[in-house]
Amino acid sequence: MYQSFEVSARPEQGPPRLLALRAEMQKEGLDGFVIPRADAHQGEYVAPRDERLAWLTGFTGSAGFCAALVETAGVFIDGRYRTQVKTQVAEAFTPVPWPEISLGAWLREQLPQGGVVGFDPWLHTPGQIAQTEAVLEGSGVTLRQSTNLVDRIWADQPAPPMAQAKVHPLQFAGESHAEKRHKVGAVLRDAGQAAAVITLPDSLCWLLNIRGSDIPRNPVVHGFAVLHQSGVVDAFVAAAKVGGLDDHLGDEVSVRDPSELLSYLDGLDGPVRLDKLSVPVVIADRLDDRKVWGDDPCALPKARKNEAEIAGAAAAHLRDGAALVEVLCWLEGQPPGTVTETQVVTQLETARRRDNALRDISFETIAGTGPNGAIMHYRVTEETDSILQEGQLLVLDSGGQYLDGTTDITRTIPIGAPPPEASAAFTRVLAGMIAMSRLRWPVGLAGRDIECVGRLPLWMAGQDFDHGLGHGVGAYLSVHEGPQRLSRLSDVSLEPGMILSNEPGYYREGAFGIRIENLLVVRDAPELEGGDAHRKMLQWQTLSFAPIDRRLIVTEMLDTSARDWLNAYHAGVAEKIGPRLSPDAKLWLDAATVPI
Amino acid sequence: MYQSFEVSARPEQGPPRLLALRAEMQKEGLDGFVIPRADAHQGEYVAPRDERLAWLTGFTGSAGFCAALVETAGVFIDGRYRTQVKTQVAEAFTPVPWPEISLGAWLREQLPQGGVVGFDPWLHTPGQIAQTEAVLEGSGVTLRQSTNLVDRIWADQPAPPMAQAKVHPLQFAGESHAEKRHKVGAVLRDAGQAAAVITLPDSLCWLLNIRGSDIPRNPVVHGFAVLHQSGVVDAFVAAAKVGGLDDHLGDEVSVRDPSELLSYLDGLDGPVRLDKLSVPVVIADRLDDRKVWGDDPCALPKARKNEAEIAGAAAAHLRDGAALVEVLCWLEGQPPGTVTETQVVTQLETARRRDNALRDISFETIAGTGPNGAIMHYRVTEETDSILQEGQLLVLDSGGQYLDGTTDITRTIPIGAPPPEASAAFTRVLAGMIAMSRLRWPVGLAGRDIECVGRLPLWMAGQDFDHGLGHGVGAYLSVHEGPQRLSRLSDVSLEPGMILSNEPGYYREGAFGIRIENLLVVRDAPELEGGDAHRKMLQWQTLSFAPIDRRLIVTEMLDTSARDWLNAYHAGVAEKIGPRLSPDAKLWLDAATVPI
Repeated sequence: MYQSFEVSARPEQGPPRLLALRAEMQKEGLDGFVIPRADAHQGEYVAPRDERLAWLTGFTGSAGFCAALVETAGVFIDGRYRTQVKTQVAEAFTPVPWPEISLGAWLREQLPQGGVVGFDPWLHTPGQIAQTEAVLEGSGVTLRQSTNLVDRIWADQPAPPMAQAKVHPLQFAGESHAEKRHKVGAVLRDAGQAAAVITLPDSLCWLLNIRGSDIPRNPVVHGFAVLHQSGVVDAFVAAAKVGGLDDHLGDEVSVRDPSELLSYLDGLDGPVRLDKLSVPVVIADRLDDRKVWGDDPCALPKARKNEAEIAGAAAAHLRDGAALVEVLCWLEGQPPGTVTETQVVTQLETARRRDNALRDISFETIAGTGPNGAIMHYRVTEETDSILQEGQLLVLDSGGQYLDGTTDITRTIPIGAPPPEASAAFTRVLAGMIAMSRLRWPVGLAGRDIECVGRLPLWMAGQDFDHGLGHGVGAYLSVHEGPQRLSRLSDVSLEPGMILSNEPGYYREGAFGIRIENLLVVRDAPELEGGDAHRKMLQWQTLSFAPIDRRLIVTEMLDTSARDWLNAYHAGVAEKIGPRLSPDAKLWLDAATVPI
Repeated sequence: MYQSFEVSARPEQGPPRLLALRAEMQKEGLDGFVIPRADAHQGEYVAPRDERLAWLTGFTGSAGFCAALVETAGVFIDGRYRTQVKTQVAEAFTPVPWPEISLGAWLREQLPQGGVVGFDPWLHTPGQIAQTEAVLEGSGVTLRQSTNLVDRIWADQPAPPMAQAKVHPLQFAGESHAEKRHKVGAVLRDAGQAAAVITLPDSLCWLLNIRGSDIPRNPVVHGFAVLHQSGVVDAFVAAAKVGGLDDHLGDEVSVRDPSELLSYLDGLDGPVRLDKLSVPVVIADRLDDRKVWGDDPCALPKARKNEAEIAGAAAAHLRDGAALVEVLCWLEGQPPGTVTETQVVTQLETARRRDNALRDISFETIAGTGPNGAIMHYRVTEETDSILQEGQLLVLDSGGQYLDGTTDITRTIPIGAPPPEASAAFTRVLAGMIAMSRLRWPVGLAGRDIECVGRLPLWMAGQDFDHGLGHGVGAYLSVHEGPQRLSRLSDVSLEPGMILSNEPGYYREGAFGIRIENLLVVRDAPELEGGDAHRKMLQWQTLSFAPIDRRLIVTEMLDTSARDWLNAYHAGVAEKIGPRLSPDAKLWLDAATVPI
C-alpha cells in the first residue's frame, strides 16, 4: 500500500466521541479513563482497530495517550508533537507536555481524593501502571482495571487483522525455528524458569521463522506465545492466519486460539518469565506469584544477526541503494521550484517497488524541504506538502522491507545553492557520522559509551541534535528494534551481529534540517599491528550504499582520515550500486562519487 | 613527613599473628573473621592503628581484605596488586583474585553449612554486607557482627590519631560553615529528612571549614557528625583535636566525644539520612527503622567548587607547577644511567617543600622507569628502586596539598632517545588528553557519556588502558574525591566547579608506561557564534601547568587543532610558570615550550 498523504486528523469528530465515552465512564463508576496509543504488543505501529487514540482525539502521533476525565481530557504528547497536536485535536482536549508532566502528577492535580481512573489491562504494562501508582500514592486517587470503553462506543471499529502468515525461509533466517526454540529454552532452563510469555510480535515471528502483514510497514504476525524451557511453544495466533503452516511449525509448536491464552496461563507451572516493559498487565496479573521479571528472552538473540541475516541485509541494501540513487539522479534533474515533497516520496516508493523483492516500505518516508526538514519526524500531508525551492535542503529518510532485510537510510540534498551555514553544519554532521563509521572500540561497551563520537564535531561548534545517534534494526522485521541503541539512554552492550543506524543530524527550526544515516553492523575487529594483542575490539561494517552529497561538503573542514573514509566509501558505492542502475543514473553516480 | 621507601612488608610476621587470631575466633565460636583494609570512614588512606590488614598479612596495598578461616586465609586483591601480594604475604595466606571472586562466593566454597564468619560492624558498610549475604543465601553460611579480633591480639596497636584541627580560612573555603550547614540542612528539610549522619572525614571537614592531619596525605580530621535539618551540627570529634576552635565553630556546632555517638543516635528522631556506600553497619543498625538511604548530602556541594576554591586551586597549581618544572629541568641535566627513581621522588618532594605553602604531598609519588612505569600504581621501594636508563620512559605522577588547593599531575619523560613505538603511543595518549581538554559538551552529561573522547586515538590503533580517564579532586582535601569521575562507571552529571583529572595512559607490560595528567575544572561554556543559542554547554578550564615533553611527540600524528591547543598551552606554561623559576629552569622551560 503506497504511502498516503491524507490529512487524517478530523478534530470535529472528537467532542461527540468524548461525550459518549464519558457516558460509559459514568455507567462504570469511573472518574476517568486512559486511552493509550499502544496495542497489546506495545509496538510502534498498530492495526486500524487499535487506533483508539486517533479515533477519539484526532491526534495521530506515534506515541502518547489521552486521560479523559469528566470535566477535562488531557492529551499527553512528547516534544516531537507539540505543534502537530494543536492542529489535530478540538478544544475539548488539552495538550499536556509529557513526560515533563506524568500521568500520575496530572491526575493528582485534576482529581479529588477518591477519584477512580479506569484503564484496559491489555494495553498497559505493569511498569507503566506501577510508575503512575507510585506518583498517585497518598493522593487517594486510584487506578482500576476496566473493559475498554472506547471499544464499546466505537460502532464501526475495524476487525482485528487477519493477514496470512508466511514462512520466513531458512536461507534468510539462517537458523531453524527448532534451533532457536531450543537455544532460548535452554536460557530459560539455566535461569530456573519454566517458561516465558512472548508478547512482542517481532519476537514471535523471529522465534518461529514466520512473517505476516497484520500491521503496516512491519512484517509481523500479531499473537502471543508461551515458550517452554523444553523449547516447545504454544502459539496463540488466530488459526486463519497460520493455515498451511503446519509442516513448517512441526510437532513442537501448537497453535491455539488467542482467546484461550488467559485460561492456558492458569494451568502453567511457574516460574514464568515476563518482560515488565512490554507485557500487558492482564497477563502479569493472571500469573500472579508464578511470574518472574526478565527481559524478553528473544530480544538479544534476535538482535545478534547471524551470517545469513547479515548477508541478506547487505544484499537488501544494495537493491535499496540502487532505487534511492535513481531518485537522487532524477531529483538533480528537476529545477528548483518544480517538485513537491509528496512527489519525491511517491517517486522513491515507485523506484523501490520496481524491484519485486520489495515487500513494503519500512516506515512512512520523511521528505522535508526547508523548514519542514527541521521537524525531526515530519510526515508530509496534502496540507503541509511544499515545493522544493532554491536554497533549501531536503531531508529524505526512508527504507524498505525486503525478504532478506530491512533498510533505513537518510540523505540530505541541496536544492540549488545551499546557504553556507548549512554546508558548515552538514560537514560537521558528516564528520561525526564518519568518525562513528570508522570507530574501533573495546568489547563490552554500550551505545552510551560511544555515542558522543558522532556528536563531537557539532559540540565543538556549540551545536547538537535532540535525538539518539542510532537505533537497532531488524532482519525483515521492525525498523526500530531493541534492545541495542546508539544512545546515551542505552546500557546494552554492543555485540557482533547487531545492526544499528548511525544518523547524526542538525536542525535549525524554521530554516533547515540535516541528517545523514547509514545502517552498520557490529563486527569483530581484526588485530592491528602494534595494537594490544590481548584486547578484543569491535568495529562497524557499513551496509548502506548511496552517495553523500558532495555539494554540501566543506572539504577543508574534514581531516585526512575522514576524507579517505568518504572517498573509499564513495568508491564502494560506485562499484556496488553502479552496475544496478539505468544508464543515466550510472553516469550521474560516477560524477556524484568522484573523490573530494 | 617525606615519602618513605621502606619495604614495609614483613611476610614472616603473618603466620604467628594468624594463629593468634584463630585462637580468638575459636573463643568467639567463629569459623572465620574478615579483616578489611578500611577504617570506619571508608577512605583511601587509614591511620596506623587501622592498618590491620597489613599488620596481619603483610599486604600493604590500598584496597583489599583478608578472610581468615580455621584452615585457610584468603587475601582478596584486585588486578593492581596481583604481583605485589606474592612478595608481601607468607604461604599461610592465599591470594584470591577480587572482585572476580567475591567474598560470598569464596566463603560458600570454603565453609560447610552452619559456618559463621565474624566482622567488625564499624569497618563494613551495609551495602558490602548485604552483597555478601545475598551471595551466601541458601548456603547455610552466615555473617555475624563481632568485636574486632585483630585489635584484641595487636599488643602494640598505635593509638587513634590526635592531631590538632585547624580552621580552614574563609578566603580559601569561599563560604562560611554556617552558610554550608544551613544550605545542606535545607536539602534535608526539603527531602523530609530530620538529619543526616556524616561519616566521611572530608565531608566533615568541608562542612565545618576545618582541616587536620589525622592520616597521611589527606588533611582531614577523623570524626562523625550529625547534621540536623536546622543546620545545627553535633560533631563527634575528640575534644583534644578541636581545642581552641570554639569561636570558629560557634553556637550551632556542639562538639561531643566520639564514644557518645551511638547513644546519641538512640535519642535522634527520624528519618535520618545515611549513605549506604560509606556508613558503618553499626550506625545503620542503631538507627534501624529511623534510617533512610541517600547520598552523603555534602558530596555534591563539596564537589562543586566555588570561585574562591577555584581561584585557590589555580594558585596552588602554579606554585606546584614551578616545583615540578625545576625537577624536570634538573632531570634533563642528568645523563641516563645516573639517577634512581627514589632520587627523583626525593628531589621532587624537596622542590615542593621549598615553598612554605606546601602542607604535604597529596599521595605517594609514582616514579616508574622502564617496566616499572607499566605498573599503574607503582610505589618505589628500596627493593624495586631502579636506575633511569637510556631508552626508557619515566612516568612521574605526583601532587601537593596546599592550603588553597590540592594538585595531581603526571608527566612522562624520555631518558635519552625513546623507542619509536613509545613515541607513537605517547602521541596518541596526548591526542586523547588534548581532545578532552578542548571538549565542549551539553549540560547534563556524566563522565560515562564523554570519557571515550580521551581514548579514541588509542582505540583507533587497537590500544587502550585499564583505568578510568579521571577522578574528582578536592579543595585542600582528598586527591580522590567523589562523586564525579571521568569513567564509564560514573552516572553523576558533570557540573560547573567540579575539578577532575584528565589522565589517559598507555602501558606495555615489561616495557614502558605512559601517562599524561592535568587537572581541569568544569566551566560554563560561552556561546559560540553560529552555535545553538538555546543550548547550554560546558567546557574545561585547565589548572595544571607544566610542559609536556616535546621529544616524545610525533608531530604529524596530531591534527592542527591539537597542535594549536598544545602550543597555546605551552605558551601559558611559559607565561605563568616562567616568572616563578630559577634562572636555569626558566631557560630550560623556554626551550621546552617552543611551539611544535
